[in-house]
Amino acid sequence: MKRTKIAQVLSAGQPEETHQICGWVRTRRDSKQGFSFIEMNDGSCMHGLQVIVDADVPGFSEIHKLITTGASLRVAGKLQESPGKGQRVEMLATEIELFGTADADTYPLQKKRHSFEFLREIAHLRPRTNTFGAITRVRNVLSAGVHNFFQERGFNYIQTPVITTSDCEGAGEMFQVTTLDLERLAQVKTEIDFSQDFFGKKASLTVSGQLEAEIFACSVGDCYTFGPTFRAENSNTTRHLAEFWMIEPEMPFYDLNDNMELAEEFIQYLMKTVLEKAPADLEFFNQRIEKTVLETIHQIAETPFERVPYTTAIEILTSCDEKFEYPVEWGNDLQSEHERFLTEKHFKKPIILFDYPRSIKPFYMRCNDDGKTVRAMDVLVPRIGEIIGGSQREERLDVLEARMKECDLDPEEYWWYLDLRRFGSVPHSGFGLGFERIVQLVTGMQNIRDCIPFPRTPKNASF
Amino acid sequence: MKRTKIAQVLSAGQPEETHQICGWVRTRRDSKQGFSFIEMNDGSCMHGLQVIVDADVPGFSEIHKLITTGASLRVAGKLQESPGKGQRVEMLATEIELFGTADADTYPLQKKRHSFEFLREIAHLRPRTNTFGAITRVRNVLSAGVHNFFQERGFNYIQTPVITTSDCEGAGEMFQVTTLDLERLAQVKTEIDFSQDFFGKKASLTVSGQLEAEIFACSVGDCYTFGPTFRAENSNTTRHLAEFWMIEPEMPFYDLNDNMELAEEFIQYLMKTVLEKAPADLEFFNQRIEKTVLETIHQIAETPFERVPYTTAIEILTSCDEKFEYPVEWGNDLQSEHERFLTEKHFKKPIILFDYPRSIKPFYMRCNDDGKTVRAMDVLVPRIGEIIGGSQREERLDVLEARMKECDLDPEEYWWYLDLRRFGSVPHSGFGLGFERIVQLVTGMQNIRDCIPFPRTPKNASF
Repeated sequence: MKRTKIAQVLSAGQPEETHQICGWVRTRRDSKQGFSFIEMNDGSCMHGLQVIVDADVPGFSEIHKLITTGASLRVAGKLQESPGKGQRVEMLATEIELFGTADADTYPLQKKRHSFEFLREIAHLRPRTNTFGAITRVRNVLSAGVHNFFQERGFNYIQTPVITTSDCEGAGEMFQVTTLDLERLAQVKTEIDFSQDFFGKKASLTVSGQLEAEIFACSVGDCYTFGPTFRAENSNTTRHLAEFWMIEPEMPFYDLNDNMELAEEFIQYLMKTVLEKAPADLEFFNQRIEKTVLETIHQIAETPFERVPYTTAIEILTSCDEKFEYPVEWGNDLQSEHERFLTEKHFKKPIILFDYPRSIKPFYMRCNDDGKTVRAMDVLVPRIGEIIGGSQREERLDVLEARMKECDLDPEEYWWYLDLRRFGSVPHSGFGLGFERIVQLVTGMQNIRDCIPFPRTPKNASF
Repeated sequence: MKRTKIAQVLSAGQPEETHQICGWVRTRRDSKQGFSFIEMNDGSCMHGLQVIVDADVPGFSEIHKLITTGASLRVAGKLQESPGKGQRVEMLATEIELFGTADADTYPLQKKRHSFEFLREIAHLRPRTNTFGAITRVRNVLSAGVHNFFQERGFNYIQTPVITTSDCEGAGEMFQVTTLDLERLAQVKTEIDFSQDFFGKKASLTVSGQLEAEIFACSVGDCYTFGPTFRAENSNTTRHLAEFWMIEPEMPFYDLNDNMELAEEFIQYLMKTVLEKAPADLEFFNQRIEKTVLETIHQIAETPFERVPYTTAIEILTSCDEKFEYPVEWGNDLQSEHERFLTEKHFKKPIILFDYPRSIKPFYMRCNDDGKTVRAMDVLVPRIGEIIGGSQREERLDVLEARMKECDLDPEEYWWYLDLRRFGSVPHSGFGLGFERIVQLVTGMQNIRDCIPFPRTPKNASF
């Protein structure tokens, strides 16, 4: 007899069926009549299965005392209708086997609630809690949603490299990757010789797969990346990770409007997917973590996004009565407080800002004819602010080269990127989305460190 | 009018329909009657669409000379039945627009065949060739297949970390990750102080996500990783990459037999998926790259895998007439020549070897009662040899601790891994598969550097 997952038993199991389940004990309660109620969870869903074990089940009396919170069991038995509320069926055990114990004095996950800070220190056990089990399942539903969205539309998944010898985007501080003997390097006074390093050059961890994705957009067509990216920034905030997963679609023959349309469709698809596939987990987040989670997800899923030129947004911000900490001025980047005011209070829905000043945007964004702005776009959503950044790319070789000089970049370093414009250049667009931001949006978790299995932050890369 | 992808036109387009296509010129041929035949490709499929442009199409005479191999175009027109063989429909252009030229004297991809070595040096253009277009599409089909296989079975996708401060598996040489100023470190004679480094400790790039995946197997249940892993080994072979993608499923309540069953089902699923989703690309590989590709894929998809104890394999190898370069002896690891003899010549089908000597396998594999072997398994397939390695994991705390000492490992370094056995331990199993090996198997490409978008190897991390 094979194991049935508890999610399956709870959703489709019928009275009189026999099943075998395996999992971990959440609680045990003994009745005076000589039987025990054991709530079993196997991580396949939020809810546990109630198992009733009579004292005469073979072997039960020997292991009875060891069945404590966190212990692991195999139970076979027959399903029956449950008189308890909130559960359709329960299991009457006929066999029970103890896999492993969890000593009540030392097992860190007892019934009481633990702080998220504490749980981060035991990240190897936190997926056994309700909150982190739910985050794991929701993260999985979102990951699968990302792939399904693009696969359904004929996009190719491209695994762009993690190790790179070019600092192309200049998007942020980079981690260095080396096989040089650092202990020895420190002890002997010398000049460093990167030609002796593994890659024969100074190498780093990528900050973005965009430029490589453009290669594939300009050959096999619509494509997307979904992989880890890195920032060596010493920022201890609830919004930043040194290692995080990014999704970067890139599409030939898309102008900025096509790009905005795809971004909106993508975000709405993810919201609908999680509503459909993880309703019980979302209910939990809405009750226990953040009361507005469900409302926000529904709003994003169902409301067309407002498209607003950056210049209009500046006018709104300078003429409104809101007091901001940071000044608002045309030519400056918007701060989180400005973005949240626009999406949460002014428009009260997701918005897409576009046509940003070229002085605050990277070299690869397409220049508008006004000489002042570029075809950039940012998608802003309630409670999170910016969730997507993208642009139409500059496909004109001469304009791109001029922009690179303006940005103090050496065109020779970008020879291959320029080649894409030199040979069969096409209009194209793309955007990037930090995956953990979406997890944060959907779960309502305050700290992004709780939205990834093992967060990497300054002074921490444990597990 | 939106763009229609050429794959769509070729598979479903009907005469008299009007479409707009965008893409790159493969060839142009001018007739004496004043019209041109242009073969257009947009990367959505192997085949191109034949476009016929009459001299009187507006603007055509001005751009006619610029329509050379590699130039990019937008063409609108009407479909008609094609008299040519190998194509159902062709397009009669009514509008044509040139996006970008590709100077015939400098564009590196002319009609002649290029060596794969040369194409590696222009990895930003190689996806525009038939071979690398096909590899990209097949890689995408396999990637989507990996996710679908596990998602259909209720597995959770877990993104395990790339940066790690523990060298847990000891599976290979590791790259170091640092933000220390290496130039300065070299110039000043000092002791290195990793407490000043970004993570406050010596940090590296992961060699495997298995141990972290076990955390999730022992909490939320069946799970898998699919992400980049790294080996800083200075091996210049056609089988090794410094950065490659690994798939590592991990399942609670699975013994070695369950593990073997899943591995076989997984490989067969991938073979069937690629046969179904990429027939034209496979046909190309079979004709142009490796004549046995289709036969091998079919054989793997359709033949039950033979399960053979390691000890039996040694008996076969020592009693056969084959001459081997490396000696065969119980207790030694098998060499590639041995593996290929067993799968290609002796059994003539995929095989799963199991119960390997414990002295040649890592600490985490479950010890058999014989005191000599562990519950390891390797899946071997024709032409590639080992494609999967896995095991039932050691779930007994005391046995695991003893094994770690035997392997000279410090249990304190593995405190969290041991905790999984200390609290609610369960029997579990898993395996690992190098994704590029599967791409190599399916495409027949000789060199694994051609099976990943941008290969990282000693002295090379370009693009």
